[in-house]
Amino acid sequence: MARTLCRIFKGCQSICSLPLMKTRLHPSASVLLRTVCVRRMLTLPFRFSPKAQDFSLPNSSWGAEMRQLYEHYNSQCEEEMKGEEKQDWAWKRVPSYNRTLKHATGGVYLSKIYQSKARFFTRNIKEPGAAFEYVLFVSKDEQKCVCIFQAGHLLEGPQGSLILKNHATAFFRRVQEEKYWIRYVHGGAIATMIDTVTVTHASVLTLLIMTANLNINYRRPIPLGSTVLIDSSLNKTEGRKVLISCKVTSTDGSKLHTEATALFVVSRLLGG
Amino acid sequence: MARTLCRIFKGCQSICSLPLMKTRLHPSASVLLRTVCVRRMLTLPFRFSPKAQDFSLPNSSWGAEMRQLYEHYNSQCEEEMKGEEKQDWAWKRVPSYNRTLKHATGGVYLSKIYQSKARFFTRNIKEPGAAFEYVLFVSKDEQKCVCIFQAGHLLEGPQGSLILKNHATAFFRRVQEEKYWIRYVHGGAIATMIDTVTVTHASVLTLLIMTANLNINYRRPIPLGSTVLIDSSLNKTEGRKVLISCKVTSTDGSKLHTEATALFVVSRLLGG
Repeated sequence: MARTLCRIFKGCQSICSLPLMKTRLHPSASVLLRTVCVRRMLTLPFRFSPKAQDFSLPNSSWGAEMRQLYEHYNSQCEEEMKGEEKQDWAWKRVPSYNRTLKHATGGVYLSKIYQSKARFFTRNIKEPGAAFEYVLFVSKDEQKCVCIFQAGHLLEGPQGSLILKNHATAFFRRVQEEKYWIRYVHGGAIATMIDTVTVTHASVLTLLIMTANLNINYRRPIPLGSTVLIDSSLNKTEGRKVLISCKVTSTDGSKLHTEATALFVVSRLLGG
Repeated sequence: MARTLCRIFKGCQSICSLPLMKTRLHPSASVLLRTVCVRRMLTLPFRFSPKAQDFSLPNSSWGAEMRQLYEHYNSQCEEEMKGEEKQDWAWKRVPSYNRTLKHATGGVYLSKIYQSKARFFTRNIKEPGAAFEYVLFVSKDEQKCVCIFQAGHLLEGPQGSLILKNHATAFFRRVQEEKYWIRYVHGGAIATMIDTVTVTHASVLTLLIMTANLNINYRRPIPLGSTVLIDSSLNKTEGRKVLISCKVTSTDGSKLHTEATALFVVSRLLGG
């Protein structure tokens, strides 16, 4: 117990140096600081043990588009790592795990008080490429976040999942051609990725956030198996509110699939 | 092939009797009708083979609240089945499957032209109770839809998943008590259920719909493992637009977790 708390406080020291947004939070600064530190440590990726599997790294299920885009952004991360001058366009890859506490510092003790089977929604399927394959990059100036997302075959939508590309007459003539049937990604799966990207973006900007509103406009369905780019940018911060806008486009940016805004509120301490 | 098409057209005959919203659709009524029939047959549950597993039926993972609510609504379905007079409050359970075509009429042929492994997003995990456990009921007058939803341990949210109920000081004193840590459902999982419920509702009202907008206000997080009620009701129909509002509450209705509106557009034929 003492050892665990010791680790926790050690973690806090490094976290306290992170930038904090100037917001009106709980008046008790000391209590706030401790809570912020604990939350930051438990939720941010850099507090995870190096033994945990990082699902944001390339695997055999990644298609050519996904790999190409990954290389594009990752190469910019590498340049920064080599100690070159910091530039606005430099990116940082966000590691991604399938659970919180087991791999967090102090997890040896903390894992005991949680149901061991719980997993993050976006990483709850073991099979690579079957569901959400994604990797997030945040820009060094913390004003942008980009996600490369490959939608697996387990994300099919229930309605609108079968849409004829041509008229019914054409369907009856050409039913044997698979290309006339397309299955699309579930609207909820798109919403899930938008939430994930914007939450990550907002958590880089500030601490103790809660999603307050998600407003999604579906412009064009996303075929199962395709790779898309999810691009989020900060709209504004106002008091305790953070507004982020987000676009889901084809990898070359020519097709707009979805656009959304996400509103986050910097939470007061959630006292019982 | 001929046998399959014969089955398809046989299906169309019964579907043509379904109510159609008076909307301005594609001018070619004959082509529309055929497309509508095919889509309706493939997407609506009553076209599935009786051999397919219906995931909306009770299983061992269902908690007491879920079972109780299921019995409540299901008993009203039974009354209608016994041939009693139709009443406005009578409900119909919506069967739920994990894929479209394998179990649809004509699936023997059609399954060959699809990737056999694809599954609906909300039914892509085999383990009962691990992810989305839900059952939908629609009212007989087609103006309401209700869903009982039990959130499994694989739906955990990444940020805000660990929220201290008390101040940090209390946490350090009582860290051993599990009740001071709560894991919450992913905002995307809630959005997924809202999309599923409203799409089902809209597809009962009309045909050939596409989700155009989803606007979600998150009021209060949902703890993992809890059961909630998702209640959708028709706001208005205007031309090709259908607006549905939706509320996620605790099972007794005392706590409002989420509220949302969903806008659907009756699609024109998606000609290539």
